[in-house]
Amino acid sequence: MSVVEQARRARGAAEDLAVATRTVKDAALHAMADALVARTPEILTANAADLAAGREAGLSAAVLDRLALDEGRVAGIGDALRQMAALPDPVGEVVRGATLPNGLELRQIRVPFGVVGIIYEGRPNVTVDAAGICLKSGNAALLRGSSSAAHSNAALVAVLRDAVAGAGLPADAVQLLDASTRDSVKELMRARGLVDVLIPRGGASLIRTVVEESTVPVIETGVGNCHVYVDAAADLAKAVALTLNSKTQRLSTCNTAESLLVHAGVADAFLPAVLTAFADAGVTVHGDARVAAYSDAVVPATEEDFDTEYLSADISVAVVDSLDAAVAHIRRHGTGHTEAIVTDSQPAAREFVARVDAAAVMVNASTRFTDGGEFGFGAEIGISTQKLHARGPMGLPELTSTKYVVTGDGHLR
Amino acid sequence: MSVVEQARRARGAAEDLAVATRTVKDAALHAMADALVARTPEILTANAADLAAGREAGLSAAVLDRLALDEGRVAGIGDALRQMAALPDPVGEVVRGATLPNGLELRQIRVPFGVVGIIYEGRPNVTVDAAGICLKSGNAALLRGSSSAAHSNAALVAVLRDAVAGAGLPADAVQLLDASTRDSVKELMRARGLVDVLIPRGGASLIRTVVEESTVPVIETGVGNCHVYVDAAADLAKAVALTLNSKTQRLSTCNTAESLLVHAGVADAFLPAVLTAFADAGVTVHGDARVAAYSDAVVPATEEDFDTEYLSADISVAVVDSLDAAVAHIRRHGTGHTEAIVTDSQPAAREFVARVDAAAVMVNASTRFTDGGEFGFGAEIGISTQKLHARGPMGLPELTSTKYVVTGDGHLR
Repeated sequence: MSVVEQARRARGAAEDLAVATRTVKDAALHAMADALVARTPEILTANAADLAAGREAGLSAAVLDRLALDEGRVAGIGDALRQMAALPDPVGEVVRGATLPNGLELRQIRVPFGVVGIIYEGRPNVTVDAAGICLKSGNAALLRGSSSAAHSNAALVAVLRDAVAGAGLPADAVQLLDASTRDSVKELMRARGLVDVLIPRGGASLIRTVVEESTVPVIETGVGNCHVYVDAAADLAKAVALTLNSKTQRLSTCNTAESLLVHAGVADAFLPAVLTAFADAGVTVHGDARVAAYSDAVVPATEEDFDTEYLSADISVAVVDSLDAAVAHIRRHGTGHTEAIVTDSQPAAREFVARVDAAAVMVNASTRFTDGGEFGFGAEIGISTQKLHARGPMGLPELTSTKYVVTGDGHLR
Repeated sequence: MSVVEQARRARGAAEDLAVATRTVKDAALHAMADALVARTPEILTANAADLAAGREAGLSAAVLDRLALDEGRVAGIGDALRQMAALPDPVGEVVRGATLPNGLELRQIRVPFGVVGIIYEGRPNVTVDAAGICLKSGNAALLRGSSSAAHSNAALVAVLRDAVAGAGLPADAVQLLDASTRDSVKELMRARGLVDVLIPRGGASLIRTVVEESTVPVIETGVGNCHVYVDAAADLAKAVALTLNSKTQRLSTCNTAESLLVHAGVADAFLPAVLTAFADAGVTVHGDARVAAYSDAVVPATEEDFDTEYLSADISVAVVDSLDAAVAHIRRHGTGHTEAIVTDSQPAAREFVARVDAAAVMVNASTRFTDGGEFGFGAEIGISTQKLHARGPMGLPELTSTKYVVTGDGHLR
């Protein structure tokens, strides 16, 4: 079936989803979870086919592990759906309202987008997560996953569709696109009018392609060149721990710190301690000349290093002469994801928060906190690094639009 | 100067604007208004040059009237700026916030987009309005107006820039792009990273071009094929008045009704009355066969008529057999702008509101009420017909993004 035909079916399903009550949608989420558990054997059979193909294709052990499902993982994926069911329904929320001077009653109400396209490279659990988040927010989902997970995704979506239909909602609320060809991505990007929004999740090049070529509105996610700035007034023990946590708590996430800026006034006291901590943690430091003076282990940093999202045990480090210089450095190299300051100075914190333009600004907190789960959203479809519509972690409300409803009594203008 | 260079300067100006207090911004708006009044003579001289060129180019009297400025109009444009100054500042508003279980303090705060590009064809007052709305919301404005108003716009922007600088804000907060070439539009559309959002205001073809070619995020505005549906349970006297008001109160606006749907059950009672009213008002009715049966004056409607935004004294009219059929017709032909139902039936109103997907749904109110001024927003930059970010009339908050600020005490994950 063509992507356009799938999108048309999604559009039809979206009409029913838009008016489905929370009770019905939550029942569908529970039915999806139940079905995943009940039909685990067929899911694992499909997954075994992906794993065998992956081993043959020479995928790394880490990639194979991310791809692998077992009974426990499938149960965990189901639990995530049950947790979504427990979240409030964003649809129907009255965002604002007023009675106008002429007596017209004005309400702005949350409504679903309609059809959401998601392009991702991740683990099979993303397939279920995305389907669940879209369904809960009243949207039909067009899922374009990785070809390496094609069998697993097909099995998962077959199970989900049956459960959705069994719960009285249209099966076409959840559809998987052909992952064997790039054409499905291209068709999806040109399906303006049928698809309301496209969310690319994955590497920088995928996101750039979608942003540049899509005529469907896009929510950009993910690229993070996050900085920790250790201010002149920082508590240095806290600063060492926070820097290490931001860099090493998980290496491959978009909210991982990739760059450290140190105020010159505390360089002598702070850099030896943090360089030792990095060395102990196996982190390679790419430092400017002033950093290199503190340790032979420092690799000289190029300008390119300061623009790099390593996603590995590497960090770029520079000494700056002022908070202003730190802000200027972040403006030049940051990606608008997460920027952190470590300081005990209230004026410095206020200045940094005001002048740094990013989805999240942390004061004395690890960059790793920029996350829907940590923010208490309960579900997350990605982290937006653009300014339009949604910025930062996107939960259920970010998957909705609004509609004005105006009620009168024959009012004329 | 190239558009890219202008965008770079706008970016620099935006850094200062983002942290400007409301006091400073409002003072700048008043200074802009004062300067427009004080320097009216030079504005009118420039306007006279545009008018002379327009007459030579054979522009219609209506277009020349829209282009024309006089002392009263300039004063009115200034008053609009003073009214903006009186509106609340959207920047800094805490949209939501919480103390997380681990003690982290989370706040989501409104911040300006940064640099906003506006492409428009309208009267010279749009230049001042757009500059004012952008400044009030902390954004630098890149204005690309019509070549027919080039002299007027240049004079207005020169006055505004002087006033902005005199108030202590960067003059580059307001910049006019070259209107003599299409290249400036093209460059603006490719200035991703420098320009945060692009708002095209004008004809359908301009908007389509920008939507398809821009890599800068776009907020689509304006095209409205708005319907009035007269339900079986409508108060027919109110329905005639409301239909007429929706069509004729102003012919050339996007919230003007272009199509009328009449429930078959009231066709006999309603159509003769409304057709007479249309005839008296000089409106040509393009009707389907069932409508034509009521009057010889009805022009047979083609399928294309039902897709046409006339912006003139024409309306398409069809008889439908049910509310469902009306909703289906609107889904097929509507542009998601404004759709109205006239009914005294609560269930019918509820059903129509739930199933019609549009920026605004009117119950017993004229389509003409979809307007920032009517909604009480105080200022309006356009009416969004897309679902991402803003939908319906866009006031000051719609010209902002948000930033999460997370404050801890050395919090680690």
